[in-house]
Amino acid sequence: MKDFKVIEIKESVFADNDRDAELLRGELKEKGVFLLNLMSSPGAGKTTTLMKTIDALRDKVKIGVMEADIDSDVDARTISESGAKVIQLHTGGMCHLDADMTRQGLREMGTDDVELAILENVGNLVCPAEFDTGAVKNAMILSVPEGHDKPLKYPLMFSICDVVLINKIDVLPYFDFDMEKCREYILTRNPAAKIIPISARTGEGIDEWAGWLLEEVNKWCK
Amino acid sequence: MKDFKVIEIKESVFADNDRDAELLRGELKEKGVFLLNLMSSPGAGKTTTLMKTIDALRDKVKIGVMEADIDSDVDARTISESGAKVIQLHTGGMCHLDADMTRQGLREMGTDDVELAILENVGNLVCPAEFDTGAVKNAMILSVPEGHDKPLKYPLMFSICDVVLINKIDVLPYFDFDMEKCREYILTRNPAAKIIPISARTGEGIDEWAGWLLEEVNKWCK
Repeated sequence: MKDFKVIEIKESVFADNDRDAELLRGELKEKGVFLLNLMSSPGAGKTTTLMKTIDALRDKVKIGVMEADIDSDVDARTISESGAKVIQLHTGGMCHLDADMTRQGLREMGTDDVELAILENVGNLVCPAEFDTGAVKNAMILSVPEGHDKPLKYPLMFSICDVVLINKIDVLPYFDFDMEKCREYILTRNPAAKIIPISARTGEGIDEWAGWLLEEVNKWCK
Repeated sequence: MKDFKVIEIKESVFADNDRDAELLRGELKEKGVFLLNLMSSPGAGKTTTLMKTIDALRDKVKIGVMEADIDSDVDARTISESGAKVIQLHTGGMCHLDADMTRQGLREMGTDDVELAILENVGNLVCPAEFDTGAVKNAMILSVPEGHDKPLKYPLMFSICDVVLINKIDVLPYFDFDMEKCREYILTRNPAAKIIPISARTGEGIDEWAGWLLEEVNKWCK
């Protein structure tokens, strides 16, 4: 039996998403809920990274996860195995979430027992970058097999993220991935970006990432 | 010095893209030009696969390539090294190409000396699937590091493609990728899909793919 809800998200009626996102951030601040928006290409490792993040932080902060997908509930099913609170959001074909869609998800998930809410956005490096979800921080995952040139090709995504996790570093020997060039390309677009190489599979780098996240949650919720 | 043009594509004014795509296919049929629409996630290996495809077919068919990207000209630069005719299309932030945008690209590239025109679409598994580009055939690349569950999560993309290339099979030993499950998930969505495992790096499977493509070009242009 499933122990998570599957919600069909409705398209927003708000014309001014930026304003709505600011409103949502205000509501979350008042409730003491930190919202993280996690983005990446399909298959970069969002769900596996989340599993490791939950493992690292479960005793320190109350976590709720919203898994957004066009279809299927494979990610919510995986996350539910961690014991974390989770809900599956279906976007009905839509390629991104905006602030009102995120609000629908938060409402259905419930935030009374949540300090850290994590939105796993649709796997896409283009559209999600254009819509402020109301998150306090944006994080993205670039995985080694995708190549170090991606910041050149998807500049907006890299420029709006507070943190870039470079995942799958355990397979670095098998790919032509130049970590120094990648850093340089990211920082050209976003000099303030924090860059953390990780392997969600082996756990390398997860402590640094979880530490950063916990610090941000504590700053926001205090 | 660059030996390719960079074009800023304009947003289409056509309301009925499906009809416009049919018109474009008719125009191409008359001119004897076969258009392939190649799609994938960011970093799945579209450009490397194209390089190997050009190598395999350059003596058999006249090829022209349109590299669509939000920004940068890294892909056109790479393809131009193959000696093939190439043009870079910038979509101005847009996450897909439709038929009229494709027509703009074909016009700027010129098709008098082209039998096989290849559109490398924007790296994205969501939006490009929703817009018929006027292509005769749709192909997509799923790469091993992305995982075998992607057909469950991006059903439309897998259902509209005539061919699914499963790329980066040279790194299969380093990933938990179940080829049989992947085939099953693809065929559930699209029983007619042709599935070809390849490695654009080692060249494995390229002959089968290039053979299929050449046969389709010959059928269309005869």
